[in-house]
Amino acid sequence: MKLIIDAFGGDNAPREIVRGTVMALRARDDFSVILTGRKDRIEQELAQYTYPRDRVEIVDAPEIIGMEEHPVEAIRKKKNSSLVVGQLLLKDKQGDAFISCGSTGAILACAQLRLGRIKGIFRPALAPILPNRHKGVMLIDSGANMDCKPAYLAQFAVMGSIYMEKVLEIARPRVGLANVGTEDTKGNEATKEAFRLIKEQDLVNFIGNAEGRDLVDKVDVMVADGFAGNLMLKAMEGFGSYIFSIMKKGFTASLRMKLGALLLKPALKDLKRKLDANAYGGAPLLGVEGVVIKAHGSSKGENIVVAVDQAIKMVNADIVGTIKQNIPVMTVQE
Amino acid sequence: MKLIIDAFGGDNAPREIVRGTVMALRARDDFSVILTGRKDRIEQELAQYTYPRDRVEIVDAPEIIGMEEHPVEAIRKKKNSSLVVGQLLLKDKQGDAFISCGSTGAILACAQLRLGRIKGIFRPALAPILPNRHKGVMLIDSGANMDCKPAYLAQFAVMGSIYMEKVLEIARPRVGLANVGTEDTKGNEATKEAFRLIKEQDLVNFIGNAEGRDLVDKVDVMVADGFAGNLMLKAMEGFGSYIFSIMKKGFTASLRMKLGALLLKPALKDLKRKLDANAYGGAPLLGVEGVVIKAHGSSKGENIVVAVDQAIKMVNADIVGTIKQNIPVMTVQE
Repeated sequence: MKLIIDAFGGDNAPREIVRGTVMALRARDDFSVILTGRKDRIEQELAQYTYPRDRVEIVDAPEIIGMEEHPVEAIRKKKNSSLVVGQLLLKDKQGDAFISCGSTGAILACAQLRLGRIKGIFRPALAPILPNRHKGVMLIDSGANMDCKPAYLAQFAVMGSIYMEKVLEIARPRVGLANVGTEDTKGNEATKEAFRLIKEQDLVNFIGNAEGRDLVDKVDVMVADGFAGNLMLKAMEGFGSYIFSIMKKGFTASLRMKLGALLLKPALKDLKRKLDANAYGGAPLLGVEGVVIKAHGSSKGENIVVAVDQAIKMVNADIVGTIKQNIPVMTVQE
Repeated sequence: MKLIIDAFGGDNAPREIVRGTVMALRARDDFSVILTGRKDRIEQELAQYTYPRDRVEIVDAPEIIGMEEHPVEAIRKKKNSSLVVGQLLLKDKQGDAFISCGSTGAILACAQLRLGRIKGIFRPALAPILPNRHKGVMLIDSGANMDCKPAYLAQFAVMGSIYMEKVLEIARPRVGLANVGTEDTKGNEATKEAFRLIKEQDLVNFIGNAEGRDLVDKVDVMVADGFAGNLMLKAMEGFGSYIFSIMKKGFTASLRMKLGALLLKPALKDLKRKLDANAYGGAPLLGVEGVVIKAHGSSKGENIVVAVDQAIKMVNADIVGTIKQNIPVMTVQE
């Protein structure tokens, strides 16, 4: 298996991307990589490590897409960027999966415009997995699609189920439709119709409408339009950071507090581990013609290792093929 | 000033409602109350306390609206419920504000159908205040309105500003429009138009689009449609409870952990205090012809005391009158 890794995406590129790639290469020997980006800089980083050279290839792609660039324009203009070159290699079957920590918008735009959607899929969705009481919960969509028609949401339900069953090995993942109440008739016009459509999908273990709080407990897949999904995701992230910032300040405020925190260290470590969204890898982009993973912009080497494991699982489980075989054929009024 | 309190709303009614009312009566002497509900039961509860009898009136309303009843049907059928009778007393100027811990849907339906909207307001909004790094943030709307037109959102921005300035005493409250990114052109069709409309409001200190994570820091008022607002609110609530449940378990797992937690007690108390949504009172229902506060269904006596303070502040600050004077006259295509 060959993974294509964008060495120039994210805040810590190329240093941490290269470091993580080397760690992953050392950890398992069932894959090789193509790194895309400025060849000289990648070689410079690689030179610091001992690693299996025969499993690493570099494809020079000198242009870099910044986090603040307009996605579609950037994709069109910067044909030699690490992100575009990487996805074109994937399209050309030079590799089996693509991982990038770069601009979400640019990864999405490139996947739509260059790599292409799976036939029958209306809209690809960005689907991060968040920590919860069980094995994690997928929030699909988290920001790729603003105005979602009910049929899009039904397809998200199918794609999310496939991923959680095959990659996280959850049997019959519980799928909920994000809504303002759990009664069947709740919500807006779009969710009422989406409820009906998702219910028709044999592949989906649909538990019905789910509230925001059900993310942590009752569902394995939460289906939402990208607008509400993104707001929920970031509200939780922000609230979590806020809680941790209060704790950090309080727990270091005096000698007594520091001693208390020292005693609680194992519990605090466990708390951090349980809330670590990076444990699940990056956000898969589901519905496109290949395995594409958007890892966090702030990823460190350790996060790249997890994303590599995730990519290999996605390829081995043939997520793209399974989606192709199971995607409901639907029509939608545009 | 006279407050009307629904003694039979919420999980702990009438016991905690009556207890809280008595606590509030003892704490300040600038108001009197009308309690609505089953007179005999309220008298039975009151009999346990010493309190200023001349400041308490009971209006018998033997029917109770359950949390699971269909709101509109319940309002129509149960004319003698504590909730309907209370709001009708408010409409009839028998009191200055109405507080209930009962069914949100029923409180909303009754306010719309019986109490009435302020002329010119398209939709009343439910607007809880959440803890954040500053003085709290209002999330308007949090679930009263599913499909919101841009003009509704612009009115929410105005009403939210007025409340946060007058009740929480935040000068020029920063208003953000909930969105998937902070750039001006982000979002769906409704937010793009809402952005333009809110920008036109002189009364509003509009900081532009805001992301979910900005709730904890960058805004004092977050404007959202009730669908996304409710999902955000509950996602945060659920995530917060999840974090606390992990901590509780970890911090009591062994003698060492218990000792650590004991040392950290002041910091943990401070954390809890900073994250206490009840500190701000209940959620005001803004845009209706009177001061209506929906307090949490699980409210204890202490929460009633805060809601009483909040109601008095809202009346003294003439929130309803100020909204009337400042509400932008708009047209909307229904």
